[in-house]
Amino acid sequence: MTRPLTIAGAQLGPIELGHSRAEVVERLLVLLRDAAGRGAELVVFPELALTTFFPRWWFEDQRDIDAFFERSMPGPDTAPLFDEARRLGVGFSLGYAELATDDDGTDRHFNTTILVERDGSVVTRYRKVHLPGHEEHEPWRAFQHLERGYFEPGPEGFHAHRAFGGVVGLATCNDRRWPETYRVLSLQGAELVLIGYNTPIHYPPDPSQDRLAGFHNELVMAAGAYQNGMWVVGVAKAGAEAGCDLLGESRIIAPSGETVALSTSVGDEVIVAECDLDLCANYKDTLFDFDRYRMIEHYGAITAQRGPIPPTNDEGGPR
Amino acid sequence: MTRPLTIAGAQLGPIELGHSRAEVVERLLVLLRDAAGRGAELVVFPELALTTFFPRWWFEDQRDIDAFFERSMPGPDTAPLFDEARRLGVGFSLGYAELATDDDGTDRHFNTTILVERDGSVVTRYRKVHLPGHEEHEPWRAFQHLERGYFEPGPEGFHAHRAFGGVVGLATCNDRRWPETYRVLSLQGAELVLIGYNTPIHYPPDPSQDRLAGFHNELVMAAGAYQNGMWVVGVAKAGAEAGCDLLGESRIIAPSGETVALSTSVGDEVIVAECDLDLCANYKDTLFDFDRYRMIEHYGAITAQRGPIPPTNDEGGPR
Repeated sequence: MTRPLTIAGAQLGPIELGHSRAEVVERLLVLLRDAAGRGAELVVFPELALTTFFPRWWFEDQRDIDAFFERSMPGPDTAPLFDEARRLGVGFSLGYAELATDDDGTDRHFNTTILVERDGSVVTRYRKVHLPGHEEHEPWRAFQHLERGYFEPGPEGFHAHRAFGGVVGLATCNDRRWPETYRVLSLQGAELVLIGYNTPIHYPPDPSQDRLAGFHNELVMAAGAYQNGMWVVGVAKAGAEAGCDLLGESRIIAPSGETVALSTSVGDEVIVAECDLDLCANYKDTLFDFDRYRMIEHYGAITAQRGPIPPTNDEGGPR
Repeated sequence: MTRPLTIAGAQLGPIELGHSRAEVVERLLVLLRDAAGRGAELVVFPELALTTFFPRWWFEDQRDIDAFFERSMPGPDTAPLFDEARRLGVGFSLGYAELATDDDGTDRHFNTTILVERDGSVVTRYRKVHLPGHEEHEPWRAFQHLERGYFEPGPEGFHAHRAFGGVVGLATCNDRRWPETYRVLSLQGAELVLIGYNTPIHYPPDPSQDRLAGFHNELVMAAGAYQNGMWVVGVAKAGAEAGCDLLGESRIIAPSGETVALSTSVGDEVIVAECDLDLCANYKDTLFDFDRYRMIEHYGAITAQRGPIPPTNDEGGPR
């Protein structure tokens, strides 16, 4: 049996500060049509795909921050993307900064991704759970990473949904470095996880990691795919954006952990693969048959404590 | 600051059914002295390092199974290894089949690893938690994998200990494929995880995985190292044992996920690396600062449910 789904990763090159939403959506439409022409049924766009990666700058005025956010999705600038996707019969996921308003009028800011089916129906939206970086202005950095200042973490967690003939989950950028992300989705039966990212190659807190950015990107997504028997699609906003180098290396990864499609530029680029969702069973029903093999009675610390609790000097274990 | 610890992986080639414990211990002594001569302070031996990988055969008589087990550690045959290690001032970990007896006289069988400090003191013993394979004889297999028939899972779980100037944890073979293993140890502050394995290259339930055995071995240990900022040492029993090919590729992996030492044979072979335990902080104090970044409120399923619970057709998520 096979259950093929043709998926495209629509990598974006840099979006500069002065680029309008309309200009960006024009680029998304070019990528969408390219992907559709190559048979894609689902197109994965990056995280924060409508603007430059604005958390790299410190803004003092909340109105300057809010200018990067969408108050509705679709909105006037993004409606053409939704319309064209429906016309082409192509689904998509799209990352954007979401400004929601509570009933009491409080503004809430999320790093959000929306998933849209081929008929134009909204499957779900996901609000990023693992926000990296820092909360306050850190002037020693050449570029800030103020996600923790500009967004709040998604309060709803991870959710898998039946869509595109399988079970699909969403995650965003830094989420992909945490094995819990894949595991929680996989425990909901996810067969496919879509991940957009903006990954600065330079990591100021430990520059020794810079040369490993591509290796780590592949490592975490391949491990997540293999250890959960899932397809993983990781799609970058790439290239020298406002003088800050962002990793490319968008990938479509099989449940074996093997990359079956890889971008080769740091610009706008479509990668495509036919993904057989039935391949997940090769792993989910054998080596990673969770019902048979997981030992949850020994995993308690994972949910009981946030940080490490090292043993004391005197503490003995089983002898 | 650096906190160097020189670690050796002592890979073993095949041990055949007719080999005595005394013969095997002679080989372990050769590897131990080789490692000590190369500066090793800690030598990691494989899983079930004293015998052939006996779960590949179906035995009907419990006495035939028990013949592969140790009733004491050290015992008469293994005492020379403990003595020589103490004399050399070298610590070690050693995997073996443990036959313990409860107070009521019940025999209990574990797939166990012991960790011994440089002064000969026992740091801990670990009983394997994730037992792969099957419980009953499956005659369609060329080789059985009866770990679930011959052992019970370790009831004590994973424990990290202060030893060798750092915090050390043990895991065994199949444990390394489960991200929970590394995470639970890391949540106890582990900076170093020692893993012995016997990994048949042919996986009868899904032979499409056979060509990927080496890739998967590296993938899971490198991801465990990186995602937890730990050193990981994986050591094989390797080669064509009783006609069954076992993976080699013993590795010492840095907290970056990079392999810094790799075996190149499928026989008895020592690999050595100077491991700076302070490198762990590069990751544990930055990107993987668990206290700051883990989001345990969204990890509940990991400990609450063993197997997947897929969404129903009608189930909607956040929209």
